Amino acid sequence: MKPAEGKRPEDPLPAWVSRHGLALLTDLYELTMFAGYLETGIDRRRACFEYFFRELPPHTGFAVFAGLDGLLHALESFRFNRADLDYLRGLKLFSKKTLDRLAGFRPELDLFAPPEGSIVFPHEPIVRVEGPLADAQLIETMLLNLLNYPTLIATRAARVSLAALGDPVMEFGLRRAQGPDGGLSGSRAAYIGGCGATSNMLAGKAYGIPVRGTHAHSWIMSHPSELEAFRQYAKIFPDSPILLVDTYDTLASGVPNAIRVFKELRQKNPDVRAAIRLDSGDLARLSKEAWKMLVAAGFSDPLIVGSGDLDEDLIADLKRQGAKINSWGVGTHLITCKDYPALGGVYKITAMEEGGKWRPRIKLSSNPAKTTDPGRKQVFRLMGEGVVPQADVLVPADESPRPGRRAGVDRLLFYERRDFRPTAVQPLLEKVMAGGKRLGPAEPTAAVRERAQAGIRLLPEELKRLRNPDRYPVLLSPGLAAIKERMMKKG
Amino acid sequence: MKPAEGKRPEDPLPAWVSRHGLALLTDLYELTMFAGYLETGIDRRRACFEYFFRELPPHTGFAVFAGLDGLLHALESFRFNRADLDYLRGLKLFSKKTLDRLAGFRPELDLFAPPEGSIVFPHEPIVRVEGPLADAQLIETMLLNLLNYPTLIATRAARVSLAALGDPVMEFGLRRAQGPDGGLSGSRAAYIGGCGATSNMLAGKAYGIPVRGTHAHSWIMSHPSELEAFRQYAKIFPDSPILLVDTYDTLASGVPNAIRVFKELRQKNPDVRAAIRLDSGDLARLSKEAWKMLVAAGFSDPLIVGSGDLDEDLIADLKRQGAKINSWGVGTHLITCKDYPALGGVYKITAMEEGGKWRPRIKLSSNPAKTTDPGRKQVFRLMGEGVVPQADVLVPADESPRPGRRAGVDRLLFYERRDFRPTAVQPLLEKVMAGGKRLGPAEPTAAVRERAQAGIRLLPEELKRLRNPDRYPVLLSPGLAAIKERMMKKG
Repeated sequence: MKPAEGKRPEDPLPAWVSRHGLALLTDLYELTMFAGYLETGIDRRRACFEYFFRELPPHTGFAVFAGLDGLLHALESFRFNRADLDYLRGLKLFSKKTLDRLAGFRPELDLFAPPEGSIVFPHEPIVRVEGPLADAQLIETMLLNLLNYPTLIATRAARVSLAALGDPVMEFGLRRAQGPDGGLSGSRAAYIGGCGATSNMLAGKAYGIPVRGTHAHSWIMSHPSELEAFRQYAKIFPDSPILLVDTYDTLASGVPNAIRVFKELRQKNPDVRAAIRLDSGDLARLSKEAWKMLVAAGFSDPLIVGSGDLDEDLIADLKRQGAKINSWGVGTHLITCKDYPALGGVYKITAMEEGGKWRPRIKLSSNPAKTTDPGRKQVFRLMGEGVVPQADVLVPADESPRPGRRAGVDRLLFYERRDFRPTAVQPLLEKVMAGGKRLGPAEPTAAVRERAQAGIRLLPEELKRLRNPDRYPVLLSPGLAAIKERMMKKG
Repeated sequence: MKPAEGKRPEDPLPAWVSRHGLALLTDLYELTMFAGYLETGIDRRRACFEYFFRELPPHTGFAVFAGLDGLLHALESFRFNRADLDYLRGLKLFSKKTLDRLAGFRPELDLFAPPEGSIVFPHEPIVRVEGPLADAQLIETMLLNLLNYPTLIATRAARVSLAALGDPVMEFGLRRAQGPDGGLSGSRAAYIGGCGATSNMLAGKAYGIPVRGTHAHSWIMSHPSELEAFRQYAKIFPDSPILLVDTYDTLASGVPNAIRVFKELRQKNPDVRAAIRLDSGDLARLSKEAWKMLVAAGFSDPLIVGSGDLDEDLIADLKRQGAKINSWGVGTHLITCKDYPALGGVYKITAMEEGGKWRPRIKLSSNPAKTTDPGRKQVFRLMGEGVVPQADVLVPADESPRPGRRAGVDRLLFYERRDFRPTAVQPLLEKVMAGGKRLGPAEPTAAVRERAQAGIRLLPEELKRLRNPDRYPVLLSPGLAAIKERMMKKG
């Protein structure tokens, strides 16, 4: 592997942060289908695809949509470079016509999506893509890759933050992430979902996320003694040292040595806050003991950071047991979403233009839950009490959100109908890209985070339970249900 | 996010493929410790760190080491660019001295590792890093990020390939991978571990992996009928069409339509091989029925590709039930290692130079299994019957592999001793980098794959069982065990 030409050390960010050069990050079959549409002359017929997922991770009541910004960047900069085209030519699979078309190809697509950081639910279209059939097909794999993982991690981070009951949560997962980008886009998504900081410096630089961290066991082990190591560390970073106290023996040596060093610091700075990190052992017992020792030494409000194989269930349980931890570092479980490492988002064709009119398409399945909801769709979020989401109703894309009564029908049991009197009706999808050009500037990641956090605050409590939360209703409008029923009967 | 300066569309590969620009892909605490070592003046003391993991994924008897090539590239091109340094300066955490040092920093490290694709086991040093303390510390996070995930996926791919009993396995995971790089480095690792092809075009281009794929349900749904869609596809790709037969009804419509199209193809090319893909439904029943129908139509050796939420257990079970599938596409479960998405590899200091001599270091733990094995180490692989691995013994790094009798002592139970009469003794770790310069050229990925496959073939069958495999002995030499026991007693 030779260094890429044209790469200069003064590049402000690695190119992959900006989602450049991803055109070839696709499955072969997208390209063979692209070629097929071109050869059969239907490549420019307008098609509508929708991105959605069918299932939330276990015990999860809502999802936080993330990854949109990266997708829009990737689409705007989408082009096959000369080396890509040489590679494709060398495969001897594609005609000259196809290769010529790919050489100048830019996806000329319209995209509709909720703002990044919005709360979303299973079975509703989250991104609607409209444009030439070949263009919309070609971006499938890239779109799925760029949305599935960030949405999964933002959602997981939201749960971890809920478990921490307002304590700051730091994302520490880079070393266990699935590759450099897993670490980078994962850190960004974790921040959006609710983490307040990351250990990942590149994510800090790229997205303006606050960075946190102090030292590891190796710092202690490379000094003659733990006390000496603490002293040196506090000397170099006198403002905010957090001392890791579990290298040898937490209560017999780590905490007493830390207290000694914080007392020394206090002589120079009476306001110094004692701060330690516990990374092993029983965090409930150790934190309570350490807290007592620190308070007894006159540090009335110590910072105690807990880390080490934490997830939201363990944090909730430690909280329940009164652990005196007030800051949490979460790594592997968050960055890989350990018990559910892939959101099963899919991208399905839902309509095609015929004779100037959109015609709905349906994908039937022997498993009725997998039968798609046909047609170009919008999602109306029905609010109660002004702002609290009550239900989402899928409607044909051109329907306007009239106030007043609305009904929703179950996706499968068409005889199940519910009536609502929403105080407000909010369309979820907005046009974010037209003809391949992004509408509006990129948002700062902190703004996306703010939107997500505001959305989570407004959710009914029963969706925020960590175990067995309520199921949020996602329904079809009566009109859409009728279309679906008719198409299912026709087969 | 602005496009990176200096990025030109003719770049042969995105820079991240080449592992450029990763200097800042690290945890903050590596940098604070770097600064700390510098300020206390111990930054240039020689230290030895070792990378190892403690646990294999569930039911897994061995691991396939992958990721080394990426690590060596990242180390060789390691430098902080101007924007990185501006960012670090802006944090107001680091002294001018530290920033100046980082500006010209290149890690001056020696690395010792087995060739990529080697078979490795828990608790043995896989990469030994020696050099200035600050340098060896600073690369920790990057090293872990670049080794943990590829080794996990290569290992998983080996299991999937074992389950497929020689059938080709294709890696189809890009859309569910944890970010673009998860997809890319995952595809490479899957190929090393045993997959024969990928759907990921960028991995095909970057690493020379064969690419595979045909069409999706959307191809069928964008044509007036399934038959028409198959015909068009076969017309455009007459050499090797694989028709996806489950869009509407596999046995009632998909397979009969496919047979019709393959009969039409046969009139022009009598040798055409009928080829279908099953992506849903009961793969055992459907494949057996489809096989019968294809054979009855005169296609005596059809290719039947199975895909859809497969893992090694399901493949083994389908095989057991006589499923007539002879090619397997594996996605989510492989690319995310779904039930165990993070290999817990760690990087621990094991020795430091004092007065010109190496002194072993130990990290004690209340969990004795986590107490580290002290000192700079080599691994001797003891072979029986000429080439079959019998046991690995950790020895002090400077010990030479004499033939004849060897003894090994349990890592924890020092009274447990085993004696071997190996027919050969092979040192596992070789010097692969000196003073930050790679020794020897990069290997083609196919050569790494060959090494892995040869290594797997030589392993005892009991390590290759998919459930509850035997545990391979990783032992300490009696000398090393004595050092460890002494250090544990001293505390």
